[in-house]
Amino acid sequence: MIKKVLVANRGEIAVRIIRACRELGIETVAVFSQADRDALHVQLADEAYCIGPTASKDSYLNFTNIMSVATLTGCDAIHPGYGFLAENEAFAELCRECNVTFIGPSPEAIAKMGIKDIARETMREAGVPIVPGSRGVIESLDEARAIAEEIGYPVIIKATAGGGGKGIRVARDEQELIKGINITQQEAATAFGNPGVYIEKYIEDFRHVEIQVLADSYGNTIHLGERDCSIQRRLQKLVEEAPSPALDDEMRRKMGEAAVKAAKAVNYTGAGTVEFIYDHRNKQFYFMEMNTRIQVEHPVTELITGVDLVKEQIRIAAGEKLSITQDDVTFNGWAIECRINAENPAKNFMPSPGKIAMYLPPGGPGVRVDSAAYPGYTIPPYYDSMIAKLIVHAPTRAEAIARMRRALSEFIIEGIHTTIPFHIKLMEHEKFQSGEFNTKFLELYDIMKAE
Amino acid sequence: MIKKVLVANRGEIAVRIIRACRELGIETVAVFSQADRDALHVQLADEAYCIGPTASKDSYLNFTNIMSVATLTGCDAIHPGYGFLAENEAFAELCRECNVTFIGPSPEAIAKMGIKDIARETMREAGVPIVPGSRGVIESLDEARAIAEEIGYPVIIKATAGGGGKGIRVARDEQELIKGINITQQEAATAFGNPGVYIEKYIEDFRHVEIQVLADSYGNTIHLGERDCSIQRRLQKLVEEAPSPALDDEMRRKMGEAAVKAAKAVNYTGAGTVEFIYDHRNKQFYFMEMNTRIQVEHPVTELITGVDLVKEQIRIAAGEKLSITQDDVTFNGWAIECRINAENPAKNFMPSPGKIAMYLPPGGPGVRVDSAAYPGYTIPPYYDSMIAKLIVHAPTRAEAIARMRRALSEFIIEGIHTTIPFHIKLMEHEKFQSGEFNTKFLELYDIMKAE
Repeated sequence: MIKKVLVANRGEIAVRIIRACRELGIETVAVFSQADRDALHVQLADEAYCIGPTASKDSYLNFTNIMSVATLTGCDAIHPGYGFLAENEAFAELCRECNVTFIGPSPEAIAKMGIKDIARETMREAGVPIVPGSRGVIESLDEARAIAEEIGYPVIIKATAGGGGKGIRVARDEQELIKGINITQQEAATAFGNPGVYIEKYIEDFRHVEIQVLADSYGNTIHLGERDCSIQRRLQKLVEEAPSPALDDEMRRKMGEAAVKAAKAVNYTGAGTVEFIYDHRNKQFYFMEMNTRIQVEHPVTELITGVDLVKEQIRIAAGEKLSITQDDVTFNGWAIECRINAENPAKNFMPSPGKIAMYLPPGGPGVRVDSAAYPGYTIPPYYDSMIAKLIVHAPTRAEAIARMRRALSEFIIEGIHTTIPFHIKLMEHEKFQSGEFNTKFLELYDIMKAE
Repeated sequence: MIKKVLVANRGEIAVRIIRACRELGIETVAVFSQADRDALHVQLADEAYCIGPTASKDSYLNFTNIMSVATLTGCDAIHPGYGFLAENEAFAELCRECNVTFIGPSPEAIAKMGIKDIARETMREAGVPIVPGSRGVIESLDEARAIAEEIGYPVIIKATAGGGGKGIRVARDEQELIKGINITQQEAATAFGNPGVYIEKYIEDFRHVEIQVLADSYGNTIHLGERDCSIQRRLQKLVEEAPSPALDDEMRRKMGEAAVKAAKAVNYTGAGTVEFIYDHRNKQFYFMEMNTRIQVEHPVTELITGVDLVKEQIRIAAGEKLSITQDDVTFNGWAIECRINAENPAKNFMPSPGKIAMYLPPGGPGVRVDSAAYPGYTIPPYYDSMIAKLIVHAPTRAEAIARMRRALSEFIIEGIHTTIPFHIKLMEHEKFQSGEFNTKFLELYDIMKAE
């Protein structure tokens, strides 16, 4: 078994990992930037070391310093959390070279899923549904024109090296297509050093539904059902739930099997998430991408399955076989997560870092809080704006919403603006309560203005 | 359905009830003594009214003031919580007269279970196992001598009107019996105004195992499995768990059926608990008493069954049928509760009321905190010493203990002494971990001195 883990992250996910390690009897080493001296993960870990200045590139992305701490403190494994080094092939490779277990998939799996057109082709070959479009990079405008004719407008032009909403453009006719390809190629060459673009059918009315998978090193791969993450603002997820209000058992089974196929196609190990575009009108789903790491929204799956995903990651990395089979996975009730951010929802979600004067998380039945905040903690402006993940579990979706409203109403965070008022309005919103919405929900409804 | 509930209690249970009401869309009215102006339940309720001075008898036990607030604010129900008026037959009767729903059993059921020798005889008639002993009150010393001979020494002499560890005396031979009866009768006459005593076989090596029951007004009565509350100090429960490490499925079924019989024998409605003496050496159980209210330790049952007991209480009081049958009740994983009190375990659990300078409850997976504390809150010296109930849930007992250790280690309460250090030592204790102990655990092991 793994004896000592370096947690190469900060915030709530660092705390989450330390908690899992402590319960497994594993020692923990925290690392922190100069801005994070007073962070909770630093206080909770068995040891903690500063790895550099405030800027992420000098600290949380600093391979050398992180690996030095791991080696000097005798860590036999590193957990990267999410973001930072979690999907960095080169870092996973460095861990392998240094004989330190990277708690995540192999560098090869990270690479295969990290480059969009390669992932797309791998999925095509594996028989996982992909959005109709070009095979690989577009070679000529004539080819693009022909494909667009075939799949029909609107289409979406994507830079193969893009990501995070960058290097993407929609074309609704041939003129927009030609112009779009030219501009996206130029932009991609400048931004990513790779001008390659490909095109796909643009699906406008869809839900973001993703499948959690777990795979060990012995070829056992299972899925743990879906999460619905359709409530997004500018491609950032704000609320996630499990199960999805849009799926039935049959669709869940099909999507789950496709996700397992996707994971197997890259010899995936550990916990991962296969994201799908779910065309809920036509009951079709298409591979979007695979996140080769633990996700922010993993707790909703933990609550309805009873499986501790971070502990599973650690056990798999330690070479253990999966303790459960697909048949052992059962779903119990409904879980919803709200991301409570240090932002002012009344002012266009403007960041609101600063000192939390008073802090009291909600409690009672069916309430889970994953957070690195405490009374007197100052949220630094340098990293993400998350204060806490508030997650509830109840027998039904209606009861989960009622519980979330109750929990949000008693969550006290004073001194900074938070997105709690937004979440309260969202939970009160009829359309959200109906369960019938797509990823454009927040474009269609001005939640903060709604009465 | 009930529309507005007066919560006739304080502390964590008042908060617990307000949470359940809020989730059910029911308005709440808090009441408070002059010492509790800044209490959390006052802040969380929709309305709050002072009902008298600090002393419980003038406030939380003040029938008139509580009923006046209920009437004036238009409450259609009163939830008594535990303690105070929860098992007060006269108050339940007053509610009936005032046409306000008492969220609990009928005054008749409270009365039948409240007087020890009547409860004992009712159970005997219903076929619920009782400890061998006298039938009703002892009429003469000769009768006592004959019964003691028959059941064998040691025996226990109990005042029929006693309770809470008072009016109880053990006799190991005839001489002690005669002396004990005389003294107990005198004491009981003075203390309870009723000199009646009865005798029972004294079982020394037993576990405290209790069964949660739910009963509606339509004759449906089910049980939700057991809680093991053997970790006690001076008859006060400190740690509770569900299931019990000492029960197998067969014994659980038998004890559950006996509890249902007990509840039916008094036409019980609502949530109640039948406490048993479990002679784990001989695999025999005996009726101890029935608590005709929600108990402090109800969350461990909620965690392993997924049933919200406080919501069920409210639904039953509103005249709803039980939504689940006995067959619907399933048990999932293991739950443990530690009562975190404002006491100094290093100084013989001396009370340690005062101001909580810093407060941060633990979070993450499988952790529930039921509390009325907050940063800056002052625990008053006038009521019970509970700060928080820390409850964990995990797939197995070993994992639940590991989770509890983790959660205890990150619970921050500064400014006063708490029982957290005691619970940490208990969770680390081999004997506790083995699951093999009885109610004398804390007499046998000096936890705070153990290394």
